[in-house]
Amino acid sequence: MPDGSRADQSAIVVGVGARQGVGGALAHRLSREGMHVFIAGRTADRLEALATELRADGGVVTPVVTDTTSEEAVIALFDHVEKNGPPLELVAFNAGNNLWGSLLEMEADFFEDIWRVACFGGFLVGREAARRLVPIGRGSILFTGASASLRGKAQFAAFASAKAGLRMVVQSLAREVGPQGIHVAHVVIDGAVNGEVVRNKVPGIEDRFGSEGMLNVDAIAEAFWQLHLQHRTAWTQELDLRPFKENW
Amino acid sequence: MPDGSRADQSAIVVGVGARQGVGGALAHRLSREGMHVFIAGRTADRLEALATELRADGGVVTPVVTDTTSEEAVIALFDHVEKNGPPLELVAFNAGNNLWGSLLEMEADFFEDIWRVACFGGFLVGREAARRLVPIGRGSILFTGASASLRGKAQFAAFASAKAGLRMVVQSLAREVGPQGIHVAHVVIDGAVNGEVVRNKVPGIEDRFGSEGMLNVDAIAEAFWQLHLQHRTAWTQELDLRPFKENW
Amino acid sequence: MPDGSRADQSAIVVGVGARQGVGGALAHRLSREGMHVFIAGRTADRLEALATELRADGGVVTPVVTDTTSEEAVIALFDHVEKNGPPLELVAFNAGNNLWGSLLEMEADFFEDIWRVACFGGFLVGREAARRLVPIGRGSILFTGASASLRGKAQFAAFASAKAGLRMVVQSLAREVGPQGIHVAHVVIDGAVNGEVVRNKVPGIEDRFGSEGMLNVDAIAEAFWQLHLQHRTAWTQELDLRPFKENW
Amino acid sequence: MPDGSRADQSAIVVGVGARQGVGGALAHRLSREGMHVFIAGRTADRLEALATELRADGGVVTPVVTDTTSEEAVIALFDHVEKNGPPLELVAFNAGNNLWGSLLEMEADFFEDIWRVACFGGFLVGREAARRLVPIGRGSILFTGASASLRGKAQFAAFASAKAGLRMVVQSLAREVGPQGIHVAHVVIDGAVNGEVVRNKVPGIEDRFGSEGMLNVDAIAEAFWQLHLQHRTAWTQELDLRPFKENW
Repeated sequence: MPDGSRADQSAIVVGVGARQGVGGALAHRLSREGMHVFIAGRTADRLEALATELRADGGVVTPVVTDTTSEEAVIALFDHVEKNGPPLELVAFNAGNNLWGSLLEMEADFFEDIWRVACFGGFLVGREAARRLVPIGRGSILFTGASASLRGKAQFAAFASAKAGLRMVVQSLAREVGPQGIHVAHVVIDGAVNGEVVRNKVPGIEDRFGSEGMLNVDAIAEAFWQLHLQHRTAWTQELDLRPFKENW
Repeated sequence: MPDGSRADQSAIVVGVGARQGVGGALAHRLSREGMHVFIAGRTADRLEALATELRADGGVVTPVVTDTTSEEAVIALFDHVEKNGPPLELVAFNAGNNLWGSLLEMEADFFEDIWRVACFGGFLVGREAARRLVPIGRGSILFTGASASLRGKAQFAAFASAKAGLRMVVQSLAREVGPQGIHVAHVVIDGAVNGEVVRNKVPGIEDRFGSEGMLNVDAIAEAFWQLHLQHRTAWTQELDLRPFKENW
Repeated sequence: MPDGSRADQSAIVVGVGARQGVGGALAHRLSREGMHVFIAGRTADRLEALATELRADGGVVTPVVTDTTSEEAVIALFDHVEKNGPPLELVAFNAGNNLWGSLLEMEADFFEDIWRVACFGGFLVGREAARRLVPIGRGSILFTGASASLRGKAQFAAFASAKAGLRMVVQSLAREVGPQGIHVAHVVIDGAVNGEVVRNKVPGIEDRFGSEGMLNVDAIAEAFWQLHLQHRTAWTQELDLRPFKENW
Repeated sequence: MPDGSRADQSAIVVGVGARQGVGGALAHRLSREGMHVFIAGRTADRLEALATELRADGGVVTPVVTDTTSEEAVIALFDHVEKNGPPLELVAFNAGNNLWGSLLEMEADFFEDIWRVACFGGFLVGREAARRLVPIGRGSILFTGASASLRGKAQFAAFASAKAGLRMVVQSLAREVGPQGIHVAHVVIDGAVNGEVVRNKVPGIEDRFGSEGMLNVDAIAEAFWQLHLQHRTAWTQELDLRPFKENW
């Protein structure tokens, strides 16, 4: 059950699928603090299922089906939160599809779609979050990154390009609104996440990596939460997360 | 006058404005080698003016008005070169608009347009270049980067995001087609370019920085050319260029 | 008063001066957890003064005057802890002198001394810590970094060289012993620390930066502590800390 | 035969062994320009053998047996050049031993020795070179780096620490003397060098990598030379070199 100490705060998690994903775990973590958590994603069913699960634990959760690549929809999401929840305190942007493919054979639409979800959506959400938080003078805007945010590889052109683009949005936003009291940070997840997406996409990965060779989603969510708790004279702008058993 | 030694090779420079710009200087440098240089840009007048100037020095130059953000147009550009010039040897992508602005007040269209020119166009050109060069098994694909490719700053969200996205396209492409003999490299221009764009955009910059505090466009073009000449067991993937007088 | 929950654990903080410094704050933070904290530094008086202060709050603190640039002394320090405290759980290396000077005029001894304290000492402490913790199969080894760990600047040759050298020790050690359950991490302090050293070295800095323009030492210590608490499937190898008010 | 056009210039290459090494190739390349090349290394026999070989091609080469980790010896080397050669134009620092080993089992002397050769020696040479070149107001100081300059790995603690330390010396020196007209640059060799050292150390490497999977030493030397030729408004501070066939 939530401890209720933050019942006077709203949080938004953008890019939410199953409970066993980074978005789901973030929603769960924030919900445990008693925050009113708005979860945004594309699939109503999945949002509802998660909301039901978190409410069963006493969470206050509102699903908002949102096309996070639409400026209008993102603005509507934030308006909805402002109208229906307590003051906004934390926004986490977690959308992005890690799809692979040879650059030579890559369709232009594929490249653009990956960018639109992971980077353009992050710009929209980051901008709206900043617009709402700057007048309050506090709060956090946190973004999910990946190894691909830092370097390109064969097969990763689209995803790396989008994630590196997002990272620069984060850095630029941090420098713009940090001095106004808004903590903007980027979490580089450097490894396979032990969640539904990876398990569905790469059958047998658990046998190969072991459960401790993949990142636990609740441990990731905890890292986000600790960023939010940091004292404002010692803010982290970027941190990496990886399993101790990884093979570098 | 060109020395003619490379009259059997075509080059494409994408993102060409005035002679006193990086694209113009690249066209001039390649033209001096005797290559048939196809110059692509949005403005027919500027391309024609440059072609005329380079032809006066004996260059073989073909202007091709191209919307480099259109897949169809980029493919048409490469088809045109294949039909009208000797075999392709070198492609330089130099498009991109360094426009500034607060992220909080940034229009979504502005963010997207900057990306479309600097990153999406780079993807299209890089992909087409690779498709044409891989069967040949040699050649270079070179990209113009900027300080913003490496880090975000307040006011630079759109440009940094686009340029970092382009950089990952370059890294991914390098790893994909490098082993097939195609040299893919990224030149990080870390400073003000002593060209028409900067002089028009920031009046008085020459008084402030001095002519030696800005990068000479022909020196930049020379650096691109030297990348092309590198032995394939010792290829550079990224280098920076900056004036000796810069204030870091 | 310490909560005593970790009275069965030892911690070592290397590079401890005043309470209002990173080392002092780390000792205070770990002491609050009830750990037996061994504080190592060069100056007996300062260590005693800090020990007295922490004991007044109920801490179990043992000062060990140590020349951390001496292999023998570092081994003796760890032997002392093994003989006199509960099992080792956490080691923090915080030694290093940020002294400036033109490279052209720099004495070779100056360059070497800076390295010996910040880098060689870190190697010795990291190696000994790893030797003691690997058999236990758990524990953390944490290192203090600085902006200079990441890039050189005029006047910073010696310090940047030593700190970058230390950072590679940390990265190499992380990869070597991470898979054996030892969390090795590097905290990049990117800004002025609001502690005795800076205030003595740069009189008037508080007026210039404001208390919120410098990093609070207890906030830094908290970041170290949170690294230690991380779940081992989601470990951070490096994070930065900086004040929200900084001028980038 | 040298073209003699630079017979009025001296160059120093520090860290020279066989002709089939980076130092040897640099000496050969500079000698081809007609420079008076002073080659410094530890082993008289190897220096003499190389000098004899280069002189047979018309080179003007002076071997100077030098302990590059001794301040006195480095100063003596530069004094010797000033007394016996035309004005100094270019200095290349190429010393360093890539020796591996587990950090846990590493002797302190081993760690220190690696640093002393690769980093401390680089500081001494860089400082002396700068002291001699700044009054002239031109010239280049070039340093050999490695993949390990950029990141640590298990088994590479000592070498990575030393090379990263050297890299910061380079960056700091570049910022200090660049504005005075001295070009300071760092060449990151990211792969196996097809030279005597690697072939002796890793028997059979040529079969494994192929001759094109390793960096050609003359191609590396050419890259150094091109850095020296750069226009001073477009200087490179760092570039990487790697074989096109590498497996990233």
